[in-house]
Amino acid sequence: MSNSYSLKPKKSDRFSFGLWTIMNIGRDPFGEPTRPPINPLDVIVELAKRKVYSFEMHAEDLVPMGTGARERDRLVREAKKRMRDYKIKCTNCGSNCFSHPVFKDGAFTSNDPHVRAFAVQRYIYAIDMGYELGCRLCNLWWGRDGLEVEGSKDTRDALKWLRECCNVLTEYVLRNYPDYELSIEPKPNEPRGDIFLPTTGHALAFIATLDHPEKWGVVPELAHVRMAGLNSVHEVAQALDAGKLRGIHLNSQKPLRYDQDIRFGAEDLKESFFIVYLLETSDYEGTKSFDCHPHRTEDRGGAWDFVEGNMRTYLVLREKVNLYQQDRQIQRILTRIRGVQKALPSPENIAATEYDPGKLMATRLPYEKLDQMIVELLLGAR
Amino acid sequence: MSNSYSLKPKKSDRFSFGLWTIMNIGRDPFGEPTRPPINPLDVIVELAKRKVYSFEMHAEDLVPMGTGARERDRLVREAKKRMRDYKIKCTNCGSNCFSHPVFKDGAFTSNDPHVRAFAVQRYIYAIDMGYELGCRLCNLWWGRDGLEVEGSKDTRDALKWLRECCNVLTEYVLRNYPDYELSIEPKPNEPRGDIFLPTTGHALAFIATLDHPEKWGVVPELAHVRMAGLNSVHEVAQALDAGKLRGIHLNSQKPLRYDQDIRFGAEDLKESFFIVYLLETSDYEGTKSFDCHPHRTEDRGGAWDFVEGNMRTYLVLREKVNLYQQDRQIQRILTRIRGVQKALPSPENIAATEYDPGKLMATRLPYEKLDQMIVELLLGAR
Amino acid sequence: MSNSYSLKPKKSDRFSFGLWTIMNIGRDPFGEPTRPPINPLDVIVELAKRKVYSFEMHAEDLVPMGTGARERDRLVREAKKRMRDYKIKCTNCGSNCFSHPVFKDGAFTSNDPHVRAFAVQRYIYAIDMGYELGCRLCNLWWGRDGLEVEGSKDTRDALKWLRECCNVLTEYVLRNYPDYELSIEPKPNEPRGDIFLPTTGHALAFIATLDHPEKWGVVPELAHVRMAGLNSVHEVAQALDAGKLRGIHLNSQKPLRYDQDIRFGAEDLKESFFIVYLLETSDYEGTKSFDCHPHRTEDRGGAWDFVEGNMRTYLVLREKVNLYQQDRQIQRILTRIRGVQKALPSPENIAATEYDPGKLMATRLPYEKLDQMIVELLLGAR
Amino acid sequence: MSNSYSLKPKKSDRFSFGLWTIMNIGRDPFGEPTRPPINPLDVIVELAKRKVYSFEMHAEDLVPMGTGARERDRLVREAKKRMRDYKIKCTNCGSNCFSHPVFKDGAFTSNDPHVRAFAVQRYIYAIDMGYELGCRLCNLWWGRDGLEVEGSKDTRDALKWLRECCNVLTEYVLRNYPDYELSIEPKPNEPRGDIFLPTTGHALAFIATLDHPEKWGVVPELAHVRMAGLNSVHEVAQALDAGKLRGIHLNSQKPLRYDQDIRFGAEDLKESFFIVYLLETSDYEGTKSFDCHPHRTEDRGGAWDFVEGNMRTYLVLREKVNLYQQDRQIQRILTRIRGVQKALPSPENIAATEYDPGKLMATRLPYEKLDQMIVELLLGAR
Repeated sequence: MSNSYSLKPKKSDRFSFGLWTIMNIGRDPFGEPTRPPINPLDVIVELAKRKVYSFEMHAEDLVPMGTGARERDRLVREAKKRMRDYKIKCTNCGSNCFSHPVFKDGAFTSNDPHVRAFAVQRYIYAIDMGYELGCRLCNLWWGRDGLEVEGSKDTRDALKWLRECCNVLTEYVLRNYPDYELSIEPKPNEPRGDIFLPTTGHALAFIATLDHPEKWGVVPELAHVRMAGLNSVHEVAQALDAGKLRGIHLNSQKPLRYDQDIRFGAEDLKESFFIVYLLETSDYEGTKSFDCHPHRTEDRGGAWDFVEGNMRTYLVLREKVNLYQQDRQIQRILTRIRGVQKALPSPENIAATEYDPGKLMATRLPYEKLDQMIVELLLGAR
Repeated sequence: MSNSYSLKPKKSDRFSFGLWTIMNIGRDPFGEPTRPPINPLDVIVELAKRKVYSFEMHAEDLVPMGTGARERDRLVREAKKRMRDYKIKCTNCGSNCFSHPVFKDGAFTSNDPHVRAFAVQRYIYAIDMGYELGCRLCNLWWGRDGLEVEGSKDTRDALKWLRECCNVLTEYVLRNYPDYELSIEPKPNEPRGDIFLPTTGHALAFIATLDHPEKWGVVPELAHVRMAGLNSVHEVAQALDAGKLRGIHLNSQKPLRYDQDIRFGAEDLKESFFIVYLLETSDYEGTKSFDCHPHRTEDRGGAWDFVEGNMRTYLVLREKVNLYQQDRQIQRILTRIRGVQKALPSPENIAATEYDPGKLMATRLPYEKLDQMIVELLLGAR
Repeated sequence: MSNSYSLKPKKSDRFSFGLWTIMNIGRDPFGEPTRPPINPLDVIVELAKRKVYSFEMHAEDLVPMGTGARERDRLVREAKKRMRDYKIKCTNCGSNCFSHPVFKDGAFTSNDPHVRAFAVQRYIYAIDMGYELGCRLCNLWWGRDGLEVEGSKDTRDALKWLRECCNVLTEYVLRNYPDYELSIEPKPNEPRGDIFLPTTGHALAFIATLDHPEKWGVVPELAHVRMAGLNSVHEVAQALDAGKLRGIHLNSQKPLRYDQDIRFGAEDLKESFFIVYLLETSDYEGTKSFDCHPHRTEDRGGAWDFVEGNMRTYLVLREKVNLYQQDRQIQRILTRIRGVQKALPSPENIAATEYDPGKLMATRLPYEKLDQMIVELLLGAR
Repeated sequence: MSNSYSLKPKKSDRFSFGLWTIMNIGRDPFGEPTRPPINPLDVIVELAKRKVYSFEMHAEDLVPMGTGARERDRLVREAKKRMRDYKIKCTNCGSNCFSHPVFKDGAFTSNDPHVRAFAVQRYIYAIDMGYELGCRLCNLWWGRDGLEVEGSKDTRDALKWLRECCNVLTEYVLRNYPDYELSIEPKPNEPRGDIFLPTTGHALAFIATLDHPEKWGVVPELAHVRMAGLNSVHEVAQALDAGKLRGIHLNSQKPLRYDQDIRFGAEDLKESFFIVYLLETSDYEGTKSFDCHPHRTEDRGGAWDFVEGNMRTYLVLREKVNLYQQDRQIQRILTRIRGVQKALPSPENIAATEYDPGKLMATRLPYEKLDQMIVELLLGAR
């Protein structure tokens, strides 16, 4: 059976990893690091060797805050050299505005307008660097923009400040790099008790209130959706429906607990399958980016098992999508369920029609059978 | 102490209850009814006697599906008479498109276009009735618009169908009752495994894609927010920020479990306080509507204890808002925390400024003290 | 591939279904029934025809509360006839002490001692009936034994009442049917806000305080475990470790939401696999019982798709257990991980030994690789 | 109003704090420390000055792993001196077997028997130190004893290893310090995907399988209960019912998300009230210990606001318990609800009695009214 699966990633699969996912040293709130640091330049090379299409980064992953201009330039030059030599792209360069204590109460929503301005500066810095690296997307995850003490910040103010910062950033981009795009990666909580704009829905709604909504999109992360107990397929589908899917962060997670950032597909195979189905049957052309990290029990070497595992599972699931589309029984049921579609009549017409609920409810909906077929397809048992 | 609290509701408080909340007979998935049915006309009168400003309803609460035109007219007439005699308004008339088996797989998102059209017809019917009753809002809760079996429906189709139905309904309203408004009440799950547009954020984002977004708003329900483990204060604040808060459904709920619909304030006093704070310090002029039901252990009489309890808790919390605003120590801390606000400089200006993170992070943020003061204020201990 | 899977259930597989699972008429808190009632005697026959080994029941499933003695005897006679004719057993007969309003505030934990006594009577009645049907287990699910209003009941009292009722029931069993066994099926919430003894752990701990702990065991239900966000594998393993696993209720569920009771394996394939692994690699000899119900969208016929689906998924997963045990690479990793086991030295010995943490932590733990292999095994891709 | 509340802690209140709660430097998975380290000896003094009765500790809080014997003795001597001078006790001395990478895959459940032995050694070390400090309780929180990869460890093995380690530790205690006690503090997850023995129920059940169950008890932590979405009042009540409550860790937390460890009472005032009610109306004589930490936004000074806040809230809630017990209306309702209690008749007697469910269900259960009174009592509005 394994023969029928091609588990070797290719550049054309457009897989991507965040530099930070490999740079993770296995520290957590209750434990010290279990892995030595690794040089981001080496991560770039190693990813490239594994046929990864691109990497994502925070400017600070490559150039720590406080680095001088000359060293910054050297590091960027080194990165570019590796990207050229090993043929790998950078497809997202954001900023880490969450680790440094200056952002302990928020970046774009700090009560202090100087902190907000400083955060905008950090993003400007990241966009400049991204541009140099050939990147065209700045994805914002506002990890610290939330609160634990409801009285400490009025959410109405916070939303205004967020908007102001986003608008200023858009202005910068429009003037300097008109083809650059911006995106929001929402998360419900952790490291803050509640983070503002907790889901893709909230982010899309917020974008509609910006000065230039057309410059902004979203990058949903599966684990973040599951941390709110929501359905990640529906979340991504709504982003697609709105024409706003700029990227995707693939991983997995047991719902409604701390941010686990587990290897894609390690939890919830069926939901993962339908994510791949969505991506492969839409006009989405972005990367398939993995944003997770090896278990803390792994050593440095384990990180590469982890990298391969993510891509292999995607490839198996993509093959399952093909099988699904070619499965006659499944497709026959789907055709029957969907029936004949037609546009709604006018309201007047609808008001004047006599509907017979008893008759309308008589259609059989064989969802148990359908779902069982899908489960067996996933298990390789059909 | 109790003397200082005025716990008697007044019409000017604009309290409201759903007819269904009192008509609830105490049936649940595992148990038979514990209360006899009650006539909706009697509910209208009894609410009015308790100084409730208005009621909300589904058309079907008053006129069950399948009722003939003459009986329908008689019931509407009787309702109007009671509204006049007892001085109570109707401020929301939606449709129950979730109880009848014809909607078992969705109303606006049924795979069957005739079911979708029938659901639109039901809403047209409800809007006509609402208009006759002097109501100007039709709030839609799509209880059945979701799925358990991911393969049974493509969310991308579902969103298109939802949009088409909403657009047709808007057309009807624009032609017939141009001052009528429409709203969405989101819910994450139950009775469906996952309901489409699970949160206020998703609903607001979806509204932005409608033909006439200006005709649509949202009615967040606190318990629905808590069923997704999100922060209800932030949810309502974002609706306010977007100028889209058309109503609010007040109640309470232990997070992340079945829909409990408990009396407002019975759980999570601090979050309830901040909800009242938001409503009382914004320009929101809608009703404060309670959407919950008495515990199944209550008999008919208990329903009125429940009605009073909801309003009393709101009134106590509103008084706490006053105390909060008058508390000098609290206000002094808030003033200090918020500091001097100013607009962001231009991006060029920001890029050119030298910020000192070490200095910026030195400001003390006494949130433990502030939160403790709020807790003591709520407990009546300051 | 499907050839290699034998998906036909056999009596020796010891599959079981609750009568109530098929008798479910598709009513939920927000909707009317979607399926007509079905006679329990017919359910017995139809299950038997599908090679189901046994059924489980509440006495009230067969003989509704209030039925006269003669009719009761007739129904029991009819059931026995079908059991004989179609060769199917009854392996659990409990009592429905949750549907009738008399139990609205609890059965064994009602504040009213007469209600508690009445509940005990119902269980006595169920045990008598079970005995006649050749059953030897009475499984108790105390659906109403909990509360929403903390002040309404002191949990310390509730636990005493539970214990007293269980002890009296044990006394009855010891005197009348010494080979009969009793078990507890825990659930965290729904239909009560919080149910007493919410997990297998709490039930096992409570059993240790009974007069005759040896007469009592547990019947964990997977969905109930997931409603508390816990790990169902660990839950069942602890019951096995304690020698207390008397049965198991297989199904699935999205965690931390309303009780979904979905077909086994429809959610969380990996967790389901490890449940099957546990059952198949332990000395557990009870039934594999499915406690779930068809989606409300199904008609009567769909119920049988549902029945087959449950068993098929179990059979596929059991075959995966075989593949897992025969997979050399996986087994090699497992052997390496487990290493050489030996008993702990004496405390004195331990205190006197010098351990080198640096050395101890150097062992590689290739869990990413192992987990990836398991995922691929489940997907049929190795 | 504040006059009626005595918010000054006294030694007789038996308040306690973990040293680690103040030593917390504000680091989290996404951010660097925001507070400088503080010397544990200073923490002891500062707590004592605030009338805290005792502190809890991990041996490693005072004496980091790897410290030489002489330095260890000096530190213990210094601690004892401060304890004597400032009159503060040590009431729990556990071991930190979760931070060091050697425990990355578990302490008592590592697959490696040498790691398990080393963990036992660390606890022996902690018990020796505790004894010297006058402590008589060693509370075990097995932060690392769990897994993310189900295949990596068989829970049946893990439970055996846990038991073996606990038994060896008991042996050590019985031989050396017969009056020493041991306890388990359960937690459902974080830092591991699933931790073994996730709740008080599981821990109590496990204790029943130890060689000397009488030496072991539990120390429930409120936030840990809420992380599993369970009811902390019921959890503590079951520990009391089993005679096993050895301590309590008071704090608060939004349910079902990452471990927040927030100030006691900052969330869920009603649940917190009933916890205080339980402790104050039982024969519990242990400490009221706070296990949480100041928000990361606080500086060093804020930690002392936090310390005071915890104790103040407990004192206000204790006063509310008095008010509750003296409130005639509330007590009258409670008396009526509870009715006349009596022991259950014999099973024969029960079987022979005729019960009338219609009559039994007629009693009114005014829980809405009762709960409303409690809410108003908490809000200081009665």
